[in-house]
Amino acid sequence: MKKNTREIIIEATAELLQKRGYVGTGINDIIKNSGAPKGSLYYHFPGGKEQMTIEAVQWTNNNVTAFIRSYLTKYDDAVEAIKQFILDSASRFDEDNYFQGVPITALVLETASISENLRNACQEVFDNWSEEFANKLMAYGYETEKAKDLGITINIMIQGAFVMSLARKDSDALKAVAEKVPLLLS
Amino acid sequence: MKKNTREIIIEATAELLQKRGYVGTGINDIIKNSGAPKGSLYYHFPGGKEQMTIEAVQWTNNNVTAFIRSYLTKYDDAVEAIKQFILDSASRFDEDNYFQGVPITALVLETASISENLRNACQEVFDNWSEEFANKLMAYGYETEKAKDLGITINIMIQGAFVMSLARKDSDALKAVAEKVPLLLS
Repeated sequence: MKKNTREIIIEATAELLQKRGYVGTGINDIIKNSGAPKGSLYYHFPGGKEQMTIEAVQWTNNNVTAFIRSYLTKYDDAVEAIKQFILDSASRFDEDNYFQGVPITALVLETASISENLRNACQEVFDNWSEEFANKLMAYGYETEKAKDLGITINIMIQGAFVMSLARKDSDALKAVAEKVPLLLS
Repeated sequence: MKKNTREIIIEATAELLQKRGYVGTGINDIIKNSGAPKGSLYYHFPGGKEQMTIEAVQWTNNNVTAFIRSYLTKYDDAVEAIKQFILDSASRFDEDNYFQGVPITALVLETASISENLRNACQEVFDNWSEEFANKLMAYGYETEKAKDLGITINIMIQGAFVMSLARKDSDALKAVAEKVPLLLS
């Protein structure tokens, strides 16, 4: 299906945010990368760069949340499902095939102090990802409050491990976290 | 003791990196913020912005590593020491009194793909922090390999929780992680 102009602009924005960050991405870069004329950008996104970024964050959120949900259905055992999900993230990191889209952790560190709208958009993403882990745990019989708390902790560990993997240029941190999952969920 | 020009430039660089990030910080900003003339900047830091940033990272590393080491001596019990350290980080987050200096997690996300020198400098910081937790565990009787693995995991959880705390504008994630420490170190 042919992508419409909105989608093309959102994906071009996501790609630039991944490469250059929020401060490093200008409207002119988005025009160049999307091929959309300036008037079209402001027609679709009257809120300018901030709005395009928020929609790129939401687009990333939809894709990654669906991926997590789908991956976790591969295993009945919630502990095994989450452990394997993190090991799969480690493999994708090694293959330089980590999620395409806006790097939410980088964006929140860059923008939390300059835009409440962006911070809220990033918070919603983290909440959604944590909920996917929590839902899997609940479906496997964990009590609601405990599942929510553990879902948040798993997401924290994945985000922290991803930072460490980038710093080390290897996926050891993601693998180390995966091995901690059974203990944490015991 | 009066600070020398090098120190003034390094601290001005750290402050700008905290506020604006690496891409958002220019040499002219460092000149303005430090009050040092341009010639003095290049005399002390022939490697320019990258070198100033690496030295600001090392300055942050020295300060924070010494703080972690000193804090952990407050408790004989390594598990309690690490848990209380994270709760203290949560309090400092709430008081808007988190570490002054270069935000290493933000910097590595911003620069890992553009500068190997900066990535290495950030990796060294994470290694040093992890080692402080590992050393405390070893002194308390944990076997070396296990202590190193747990030290890395604790640092991962703190960095991940800090990202989440920024996204949520509260320290709940840091507190949640502190509560997981006894289980993780059991």
